Amino acid sequence: MLLLQKNKMGNDTATICAIATPPGSGAIAVIRLSGEQAIDMCDNVYSSPKSNKTLIDQPPNTIHYGSITDAGEIVDEVLISLFKAPHSFTGENTAEISCHGSPYIQQRLLEVFTKHGARMAEPGEFTMRAFMNGKMDLSQAEGVADLVAADSAASKRLAFQQMRGGFSKEIARLREQLLEFISLVELELDFSEEDVEFADRRQLHALIEKIMKLIKKLLDSFNLGNVLKNGVPVVIAGAPNSGKSTLLNTLVNEERAIVSEIAGTTRDTIEDTITLNGINFRFIDTAGLRETKDKIESLGIERTHSKIQESEIVILILDAQASLDDIQHQITGITEKFGKQNLIPVINKIDLLEDTDTTFAQTLEQKTETKVIPVSAKNETHLDTLKDELVNAANIDSYQQSDIIVSNMRHKEALQNTYDALNRAYEGIDSGIPGDLLSQDVREALHYLGEITGEVTTDEVLGNIFENFCIGK
Amino acid sequence: MLLLQKNKMGNDTATICAIATPPGSGAIAVIRLSGEQAIDMCDNVYSSPKSNKTLIDQPPNTIHYGSITDAGEIVDEVLISLFKAPHSFTGENTAEISCHGSPYIQQRLLEVFTKHGARMAEPGEFTMRAFMNGKMDLSQAEGVADLVAADSAASKRLAFQQMRGGFSKEIARLREQLLEFISLVELELDFSEEDVEFADRRQLHALIEKIMKLIKKLLDSFNLGNVLKNGVPVVIAGAPNSGKSTLLNTLVNEERAIVSEIAGTTRDTIEDTITLNGINFRFIDTAGLRETKDKIESLGIERTHSKIQESEIVILILDAQASLDDIQHQITGITEKFGKQNLIPVINKIDLLEDTDTTFAQTLEQKTETKVIPVSAKNETHLDTLKDELVNAANIDSYQQSDIIVSNMRHKEALQNTYDALNRAYEGIDSGIPGDLLSQDVREALHYLGEITGEVTTDEVLGNIFENFCIGK
Repeated sequence: MLLLQKNKMGNDTATICAIATPPGSGAIAVIRLSGEQAIDMCDNVYSSPKSNKTLIDQPPNTIHYGSITDAGEIVDEVLISLFKAPHSFTGENTAEISCHGSPYIQQRLLEVFTKHGARMAEPGEFTMRAFMNGKMDLSQAEGVADLVAADSAASKRLAFQQMRGGFSKEIARLREQLLEFISLVELELDFSEEDVEFADRRQLHALIEKIMKLIKKLLDSFNLGNVLKNGVPVVIAGAPNSGKSTLLNTLVNEERAIVSEIAGTTRDTIEDTITLNGINFRFIDTAGLRETKDKIESLGIERTHSKIQESEIVILILDAQASLDDIQHQITGITEKFGKQNLIPVINKIDLLEDTDTTFAQTLEQKTETKVIPVSAKNETHLDTLKDELVNAANIDSYQQSDIIVSNMRHKEALQNTYDALNRAYEGIDSGIPGDLLSQDVREALHYLGEITGEVTTDEVLGNIFENFCIGK
Repeated sequence: MLLLQKNKMGNDTATICAIATPPGSGAIAVIRLSGEQAIDMCDNVYSSPKSNKTLIDQPPNTIHYGSITDAGEIVDEVLISLFKAPHSFTGENTAEISCHGSPYIQQRLLEVFTKHGARMAEPGEFTMRAFMNGKMDLSQAEGVADLVAADSAASKRLAFQQMRGGFSKEIARLREQLLEFISLVELELDFSEEDVEFADRRQLHALIEKIMKLIKKLLDSFNLGNVLKNGVPVVIAGAPNSGKSTLLNTLVNEERAIVSEIAGTTRDTIEDTITLNGINFRFIDTAGLRETKDKIESLGIERTHSKIQESEIVILILDAQASLDDIQHQITGITEKFGKQNLIPVINKIDLLEDTDTTFAQTLEQKTETKVIPVSAKNETHLDTLKDELVNAANIDSYQQSDIIVSNMRHKEALQNTYDALNRAYEGIDSGIPGDLLSQDVREALHYLGEITGEVTTDEVLGNIFENFCIGK
């Protein structure tokens, strides 16, 4: 928070540094430096085999090969990309150092630059500086973080639209309309002595209703936005050894969970995702639902129950070898507890049945009055039917690429607050409240809209937003 | 292998692409394209908000901001760095695309470029092209891979020296001396009719002895090189609940292993490292050594035994609350099986003793005739003593920064083959073999030296080397 205060005073020109590429080992990694002295700091430790020119004297948007030396030892041979203020992501002087991708070398380079006066960047500090320097508004900055976290076509499209200012434009449109409204009301206040009414209250009423409708539409998009952004949570539940982990492995085509023939192997809930029709489904494998005295395992079962509560879709895996009564009992058990909506009962291990799978499923459906999908996770039979059912259950047909969709909880809250303030104004007009009170409600609505784009903000809000960024962004 | 053959024919100018940064999510990621068409391929999908100029018309070593578009949708906003043949890492046209670091976006960009004619790079293919295009020799290329994998000051220094050609120079020196030798012998062959002896056999004997000494020194450095490169393997062994995982966690300052009060929690062997005096110690946490009927757990104990066999140092954790007899029994048990050398017995949980720790340790040392280190992993007591003991046990004082050290198994084998061939020549001089046989042995030695730098090589050797690189390097 110290840092944010400094920034508000407009004098935090300290040079910050961080690893910008994903953590770990790769062919190359990139260390990012931003601040007034970013390029000079490179000059302090850089030498080129070809040129005596300092980096600060090189033109912007150029790349330079050379060595970084510390205490007489060459730390690495690197490429340095130069960006000069204000034409950089942050709006400041920036150097991006492309080094060999060993974690050790990455750390050593950070050490070298901190030794020469840079300090480690806080999470999101590069983007915060871009915001502070007017390179983007706050909702665009949040779009950058969402874009980095995007893991499906849908979530990327959402984040991209936000980063490029699609949502900001929508907010600007709302603000414009509200300003039109308030200017009429406040004009009256200037002539309050004369008791005039420039603004036709019926027209105002209609205008405010129109704005509220727009905001309502944005608010309604949040559930969808949340699902598009974070994926549809799907719990895979069922008795021990019914094949939950095998199904998860088959669906995600990877050996993530340890599969063993010993019941109770899965202790942790393991999350994995697949993308169907551009939408992420987040699978949550769970500990088997059974009575147990094992301490760790019963912790796992508790977690299963709470995961089911949080999920959008529950796949209940039933063992084809169990008795019909037992299967019926399990379906009833889970529907009584969690309802029938978005429950997908799946009969697994149909490869072990002598009966043909359809006959078995039909008998079962008649008996339980529930649609069930017969599969063999092991042999990958009928998994496409299950995938289709997942897409149906997610129910996201309404989504249009061009729609502005709210996917950020903070934006949702600000929109809700805007809506509430406008609603007070709307009712105020009905009950004939004076112009100054009306103006106050609308000013409040404008304030909340301003929070979204960052025109109105506090250190605390900024702190909350940027602390959720990754370091280096 | 197909690809290597193509390269041998000198006509694989296909453009290859790969993610060059570590896998996963970060602020940015870099996609690397190399090949004749690398920059043109970018032009096919790139558009700049500011310039109509194509990238291929831009000067080399410059950076360009713009969008990558596929099927009418903007995939990402990126920075593209341009390098032109032959002034790039590979010696070919190269573009490095710096994108938002979401794994989804990284994958999408690869899709876009493969759609436009690039193919996914094989592991190490960028470096292989650098080798093929004469930008570096083979041992330098191997140094690049080692540098990317370097995880300590020592391993980085080794790799760096190799990448910058330190080892290549040493090999060149050896080759020069051998060529001096062979030129004398082969001069005789040209005049074989006349039965002259230009080369004084005593001088030849002395020269070959000198070269063999140099090679012997390099061979002897391999053990040290291996430890510097890969870290000193340290097994942490002991009875269940003696605190092995807690000690590991404390040493590496991270909650890697799941610590629970239930015996048998650690099933997998978890590897972690710390660096002391610039040397890596690779800790191997193990399942507790006890009799068990649990199937998974007994697999773990088997693994513990084999890990102890492979390690350089064994830390045996003993529970301070156990009886002296029990402790003595455990020390004897492990020394009988694995010897006493580089065994560090540690008495853990001294925080639970009423006795002062030194008195307890002294009694124990007298009784077991073994030096033991009293620690409390939980309270982090005496861990520095343990760390000092680790550095002593690793015994790497002899290492000089300027020494050429062999750390690569392939180089070691080639040097050994060189040595053996020279030894035959050496003994041949003693037994007065004719010049043509002498020449044959020395030519063989030269052949093996050439394998190290890649002057002599086969597709199979190249394939083996580069398949161990990461993709994108």
